[in-house]
Amino acid sequence: MNKLEFWYEFASPYSYFSMMRIETLAAAANVEVHYQPFLLGPLFKEFGWETSPFKIYAEKGENFFRDIEREAEFYGLPSIKILDEFPQPGLAAARVALVGMKEGWGVEFSKAIYKRQFQDGLETKNKENVLEVLKALNIENAETVLEKANGDDNKSHLREIMEVAKKKKIYGAPSFIVGDELFWGNDRLERAISYCK
Amino acid sequence: MNKLEFWYEFASPYSYFSMMRIETLAAAANVEVHYQPFLLGPLFKEFGWETSPFKIYAEKGENFFRDIEREAEFYGLPSIKILDEFPQPGLAAARVALVGMKEGWGVEFSKAIYKRQFQDGLETKNKENVLEVLKALNIENAETVLEKANGDDNKSHLREIMEVAKKKKIYGAPSFIVGDELFWGNDRLERAISYCK
Repeated sequence: MNKLEFWYEFASPYSYFSMMRIETLAAAANVEVHYQPFLLGPLFKEFGWETSPFKIYAEKGENFFRDIEREAEFYGLPSIKILDEFPQPGLAAARVALVGMKEGWGVEFSKAIYKRQFQDGLETKNKENVLEVLKALNIENAETVLEKANGDDNKSHLREIMEVAKKKKIYGAPSFIVGDELFWGNDRLERAISYCK
Repeated sequence: MNKLEFWYEFASPYSYFSMMRIETLAAAANVEVHYQPFLLGPLFKEFGWETSPFKIYAEKGENFFRDIEREAEFYGLPSIKILDEFPQPGLAAARVALVGMKEGWGVEFSKAIYKRQFQDGLETKNKENVLEVLKALNIENAETVLEKANGDDNKSHLREIMEVAKKKKIYGAPSFIVGDELFWGNDRLERAISYCK
């Protein structure tokens, strides 16, 4: 078993950490990564949460922000920026990332979205933000990509992915899947990779 | 800063992992550990949770049990036993542990409670269970210890500790405190220790 599914949500700082770490770790262990953007919102709604649990529980939330500051430092990443509107809706970016995965620039795009949000402190929630990222990456026909991303085919593709997420009993992000094993959280990335051996 | 507070709950498998790991890690880093047993129940009640969040959210719960199995294996601990009644109420053990901290056998007792519950799969929730552990450790005057543990002074001592927990904004277990920094979760033990330098 040397395949690992990496399920990530653009709103999630811990998904961002995993995105910044997974390439090197997976390569060192000769593990192939399947990058799977998805949305946490619909899953959280099933738990009765209308937003991130970090916003619902005050103490948890306060320490969460401190934790991601410390974790960014620990990983040698730039100091983390959190926008006033947190979590940033990840739908626009997720739709485009799906197109990118088919066209070969999905990972690069995903990293650029995360950097824009968590390193540069810029919005990533709407189509205009996403278009800027596509253009900065010199992705050809950025406008056409955006149309494709918001076309019916791609929308229903994302809905199917959400059904798969539920079937796989994913309940948070990032999540890693190795065979039948589900691992939750950036803290489990190394464990998941070691399960691929 | 080379002092670390370790807040742990007897019902918590992740607190158990930290208890089994902290001595070696702290000694290697020349860090002094203040062992602080406490209760999660009263804090969870303030969040509107009547039991562990792992029991409230089904997917989370299912994967939680798999995660602690994998973590036990990862740490080289015996395969983890989870009693039908999970979480086991930690009040009886916490009261005795407080007495033990004053009398010098609190850490040894805490480890023994965790081993009984998570390695041997035996109940630890009531006074009789706790008495057995005291006797197995050859603690002198075990019955007197139990009386002291359930005396008014000790009960109000535990209530004061819970007030301190709230003041320190603890919201889960294990928690680690270094100066003003709060770290939540067994996954943060190494980070907390590195903050002591």
